[in-house]
Amino acid sequence: MLFFTQCFGAVLDLIHLRFQHYKAKRVFSAAGQLVCVVNPTHSLKYAPTRCAAAQTSTDQGVLPPCHHHEAVHDPQLVPCTCPLFSCPWEGHLEVVVSHLRQTHRINILQGAEIVFLATDMHLPAPTDWIIMHSCLGHQFLLVLRKQEKYEGHPQFFATMMLIGTPTQADNFTYRLELNRNQRRLKWEATPRSVLECVDSVISDGDCLVLNTSLAQLFSDNGSLAIGIAITTSKVHNAENEM
Amino acid sequence: MLFFTQCFGAVLDLIHLRFQHYKAKRVFSAAGQLVCVVNPTHSLKYAPTRCAAAQTSTDQGVLPPCHHHEAVHDPQLVPCTCPLFSCPWEGHLEVVVSHLRQTHRINILQGAEIVFLATDMHLPAPTDWIIMHSCLGHQFLLVLRKQEKYEGHPQFFATMMLIGTPTQADNFTYRLELNRNQRRLKWEATPRSVLECVDSVISDGDCLVLNTSLAQLFSDNGSLAIGIAITTSKVHNAENEM
Repeated sequence: MLFFTQCFGAVLDLIHLRFQHYKAKRVFSAAGQLVCVVNPTHSLKYAPTRCAAAQTSTDQGVLPPCHHHEAVHDPQLVPCTCPLFSCPWEGHLEVVVSHLRQTHRINILQGAEIVFLATDMHLPAPTDWIIMHSCLGHQFLLVLRKQEKYEGHPQFFATMMLIGTPTQADNFTYRLELNRNQRRLKWEATPRSVLECVDSVISDGDCLVLNTSLAQLFSDNGSLAIGIAITTSKVHNAENEM
Repeated sequence: MLFFTQCFGAVLDLIHLRFQHYKAKRVFSAAGQLVCVVNPTHSLKYAPTRCAAAQTSTDQGVLPPCHHHEAVHDPQLVPCTCPLFSCPWEGHLEVVVSHLRQTHRINILQGAEIVFLATDMHLPAPTDWIIMHSCLGHQFLLVLRKQEKYEGHPQFFATMMLIGTPTQADNFTYRLELNRNQRRLKWEATPRSVLECVDSVISDGDCLVLNTSLAQLFSDNGSLAIGIAITTSKVHNAENEM
């Protein structure tokens, strides 16, 4: 009897997932857009900030001092860029992708435009939703993080980082789009390099930021669909900056 | 000597204002876009929330009970929609615009697309920046509010409201756009009716919300340029909602 109950539960879960997938596809209706269901990565405790001096990192892959590494001897070595994991791994930029896939089982998706469907948005902070996105000959890391920057007030932060150098990152523009209930929110920016560390991007607030109430408005049954597009940054270059 | 110093100060202010205007025009470069410099409306104390039960207001112009009015006897009467002022005025929808212009000296701008340049973003909360926008045969009220929803953490909230009924408001879509330093943030939604009260829109967080850090990223020398566009809402109707 228990076996049948469990089977029934599993089938219901599958149907629910399929339904969410279908709904996300309907909203982000561009032909050929991939919808990827991303489950949360929940950690009871944050790893110490790995890149306290991330702002000073240069294009040469010179990394800021890392708290859980004794020292970074080789400037080309990157500490594990996967947020929330206090992973002692460090390696060259070229092998970051395979480390993230193999050790942390982070999915990688192909395509210029994809839909990231983050599930279980109600989970308490800190929680991360992470995926890799392969596009225009490069790999990008999308991080959605629920974090209490101010105690008792969780917020959602979403950003894209290039698994490459800051100079390479400057060639791209990423767009994150939320679209639901006759509301639309778009964020466009130049991705940061993973050498700059996701923690500093979020603490600077230089990303898409959502209050819980806004996240709820864009969520459907506890899941948040984010449309992602990456382009080369010629559009931005044409702009007249202030 | 004092006279000359003051004159020099005034000239410097004028040059600074002209420069800000010029820069805002460069960023929002669409031909014919009006740039309007909006000074803050600072209040030492918030007026009590005028529309605690705003959610229940109907399309018939039936207003929620207002705290600083004894009672609203005529359902077509609107309490003063100008935020931050505990204005005892109430009147019919048709005369709200002239009241806001005459009593509160709120400017009104014509044109489908305008640029709202809010100055002195550093002023402490609560502060409002308000303008009226005449477009597509209707008048809209743009409110940018700096408010501490959580003590010690001021945020900026921007929304547009139609000076009309909720049914009329459903026919429109407004877009607010920030664009600076290779970052772009766009918010699109259906405007609310002034009958629904701006306080409730902000407390629900159903508007463009900016943390202080994000507002600083988009500001230039203490001023925030917001591009505004209003369209009829056929675009939204074509969307497949979740």
